Amino acid sequence: MAALQHFGHDIELIPNKTLSDVFETVEHKTVDYAIVPIENSIEGSVNETCDLLLNSKLMVCNEVYLRVVHCLISYNDHDLSKIKIVYSHPQALAQCKGFIKSNGFEPIPFYDTAGSVKMLSEFKIENAGAIASERAAEIYGMKVISKSIEDSKSNYTRFVVLTEKDSKPTGDDKTLVIFTTKHMPGALHKVIEEFASREINLTMIMSRPTKEKPWEYNFYVDFEGHRSEQKIKECLEHLKDKTVFLKVLGSYPKFK
Amino acid sequence: MAALQHFGHDIELIPNKTLSDVFETVEHKTVDYAIVPIENSIEGSVNETCDLLLNSKLMVCNEVYLRVVHCLISYNDHDLSKIKIVYSHPQALAQCKGFIKSNGFEPIPFYDTAGSVKMLSEFKIENAGAIASERAAEIYGMKVISKSIEDSKSNYTRFVVLTEKDSKPTGDDKTLVIFTTKHMPGALHKVIEEFASREINLTMIMSRPTKEKPWEYNFYVDFEGHRSEQKIKECLEHLKDKTVFLKVLGSYPKFK
Repeated sequence: MAALQHFGHDIELIPNKTLSDVFETVEHKTVDYAIVPIENSIEGSVNETCDLLLNSKLMVCNEVYLRVVHCLISYNDHDLSKIKIVYSHPQALAQCKGFIKSNGFEPIPFYDTAGSVKMLSEFKIENAGAIASERAAEIYGMKVISKSIEDSKSNYTRFVVLTEKDSKPTGDDKTLVIFTTKHMPGALHKVIEEFASREINLTMIMSRPTKEKPWEYNFYVDFEGHRSEQKIKECLEHLKDKTVFLKVLGSYPKFK
Repeated sequence: MAALQHFGHDIELIPNKTLSDVFETVEHKTVDYAIVPIENSIEGSVNETCDLLLNSKLMVCNEVYLRVVHCLISYNDHDLSKIKIVYSHPQALAQCKGFIKSNGFEPIPFYDTAGSVKMLSEFKIENAGAIASERAAEIYGMKVISKSIEDSKSNYTRFVVLTEKDSKPTGDDKTLVIFTTKHMPGALHKVIEEFASREINLTMIMSRPTKEKPWEYNFYVDFEGHRSEQKIKECLEHLKDKTVFLKVLGSYPKFK
């Protein structure tokens, strides 16, 4: 859905089983672009994407925001009162807590949202529902009983578009970097200072374990500006001395 | 396992279905202490715990580190060659990738680690294995075929112990706080500066969506020192002016 929103409908969509496969097909140039979720406004960062970005040669060339709309889906077009149990991914169940409670459903966690729809369809389970996107209902020939059942209407997922190169400056851009601070008191402060002293606005900051040494972190920072701008160039140059590792994932136009 | 390691074997263990139930039983004083995972050295923060800490009145009184040891578990004591498929939580499968690959197993994601052992036991599935802890095998009367199959031996989970009050100073303590910065450029820098200027060492920093407004974050910061120490008191006092929200989750002795 994010790909269709960003590229329009004249593209060929190549689905992959895992995020790691998505990265690989673009790295091997079998496919031109990858589109992967990086964070959700309720659930936070998508850790698997963050970890894959660390070791990939791909660059971020765009970002896409997509509103998350959950639907209650079932095998038949029957009313809510026939449904006792709802299956879905724990995150989707959590995001529809109000709807589930007010209808007295029993929530049962399932490995993924679309997978729970597939299961109801395959086993022709009648007295249960699944929570997933409208598109999942279409794919498996199932019925949407209620639409937009999520508690918060400001539930968005942010995706990044990846390819060999990042984007040219447009005058309203963002840049994504990953860095590891030196292992000494005040190290993070020294890095953040480089942004603050140049009045560069940070739009996201998250941390992930380095996986090399326990309790050491890589920071993922998104900020306003393009890496070809003088101010940003200088900042990145100074960051090299203040970090033990610095990777620029790319500059890209802000989503509008 | 973390509870037994921390409190010894003379305690009564009360299991709960969800992390939210764990918090509630201690908040309602039905149980004296809660012990919950907060981060893992490979997978990063445990988001559900972080989100529950935000709205709970409980305080952090201790921390516990536990090494994660994964086992291949099956219904019978047979050799590895009989196993074709392994079930487990995606994180456990990811952490045993090397072992799975070298044995040519097909990994199938399952909702949780112990649950995959329970399923093999209930349905008497013979040609499959599950990845979980040794204790899961004991509980469901299953066999451990291989122990310590995880790729990284520095796989630790950090737990926090929660109760009504935090701990008295020992001279070697840590403090956990949550804050939201003001929504203006350089806001995070101004907060971090309060720690850096007092040479207070940050031991963890992670961010979570506030869930109130998309793309605004709460920061979870752990640092060295007890909140009763003069230097820390001053820092926290200054933080109040530099943040829109500040919650001190408690001070506790460093794990040794």
